[in-house]
Amino acid sequence: MAPGRTRWIIPEGFIPSESLPGAGRPLISHEAACILNAGDEDAAIEIMVYFTDREPVGPYRVTVGARRTLHLRFNELEDPAPVPLDTDYASVISSNVPVVVQHTRLDSRRAEVALL
Amino acid sequence: MAPGRTRWIIPEGFIPSESLPGAGRPLISHEAACILNAGDEDAAIEIMVYFTDREPVGPYRVTVGARRTLHLRFNELEDPAPVPLDTDYASVISSNVPVVVQHTRLDSRRAEVALL
Amino acid sequence: MAPGRTRWIIPEGFIPSESLPGAGRPLISHEAACILNAGDEDAAIEIMVYFTDREPVGPYRVTVGARRTLHLRFNELEDPAPVPLDTDYASVISSNVPVVVQHTRLDSRRAEVALL
Amino acid sequence: MAPGRTRWIIPEGFIPSESLPGAGRPLISHEAACILNAGDEDAAIEIMVYFTDREPVGPYRVTVGARRTLHLRFNELEDPAPVPLDTDYASVISSNVPVVVQHTRLDSRRAEVALL
Repeated sequence: MAPGRTRWIIPEGFIPSESLPGAGRPLISHEAACILNAGDEDAAIEIMVYFTDREPVGPYRVTVGARRTLHLRFNELEDPAPVPLDTDYASVISSNVPVVVQHTRLDSRRAEVALL
Repeated sequence: MAPGRTRWIIPEGFIPSESLPGAGRPLISHEAACILNAGDEDAAIEIMVYFTDREPVGPYRVTVGARRTLHLRFNELEDPAPVPLDTDYASVISSNVPVVVQHTRLDSRRAEVALL
Repeated sequence: MAPGRTRWIIPEGFIPSESLPGAGRPLISHEAACILNAGDEDAAIEIMVYFTDREPVGPYRVTVGARRTLHLRFNELEDPAPVPLDTDYASVISSNVPVVVQHTRLDSRRAEVALL
Repeated sequence: MAPGRTRWIIPEGFIPSESLPGAGRPLISHEAACILNAGDEDAAIEIMVYFTDREPVGPYRVTVGARRTLHLRFNELEDPAPVPLDTDYASVISSNVPVVVQHTRLDSRRAEVALL
């Protein structure tokens, strides 16, 4: 069986609206869910986004092909609604087959910022 | 049942008293516990803070509503006592229902600082 | 028995082609899999690398001696093919004996970049 | 019973010899093992340090009191031998009672460095 689990949870979420001047896609501030589907069956993924003071939004739907990885940027989700910037959120990622998910943020607002 | 566990532990804790000049709330140096309550019942959270050389302080109490996330900054805890700055601490987070917790620090003291 | 597991998965992978000017090996942008073999038998490691839009590449083979650590840089893998730069990837690390793996990236493209 | 485990493993280890000019103890480049002993019995800790090309060194011994945290810097270990700078290492942390360990690095070599 493919490695992983069918549900992953990322409590941290915050997409800064600021980035370094002139940043292209690689250096624009973003949050990502890096998803690996190491199995032999396509993964149908559903993402629910949670907020501080209103009901969750979703599901967002993406497919990760068999033996493929998708580094999904929350900034680029559009349907049913873009994820708001400068806003605390969290996410629950569900899959019909086991996958592995790793969360990252690239934050290019200021030289002084370091993240742990 | 909602995803998660009823006890989470964060051994790292250190809130720098310095931040980049003119930083507003988003860029002030801080430590956060990002809590997701994906369940249908409000979560009653208790936090105990541990130190290097004295007895623990707490419980701090917060509520995270059903289907809500709270990105709680340790800097903003006040009762029973503010968390001291520039001081090593650790925390134990307990909940009456399962939640998921992720720890982060934003450190804006100096451009040279990077954190792993 | 030695601590660890025989399979580890790192969904995040991206080696920036840029580094700070004049960077030597310590400061060149890189991704690493830090592997500890705390057991008394050498570990035969195989790494498969997964991509967004093509079939996985590998296995890459390395040995980590008994009671040794290897901080393996993906940048330095060559056989069967170098890992492409500026490209999303993921990896699955398999071992014949239990090992422990920790993933890190050092990114020295720009002062403004912070990573979580 | 106190939360945690009696063995923790940190495959990543690298203490840069460089720091930002004039850095005091808070900002000197360092690696730390943040240990929380939330139980009611003192924890006797032993640390073994592993290398790329020679036998492990240790045990280093420290005590973490009941209901205390210790943010132990590998830079400050001295007996049986200092941990060498600019050198890849890994560590295994053993305790006679359950503790929780979190690993961090603060790296202040260069503004351009970001760590994941």
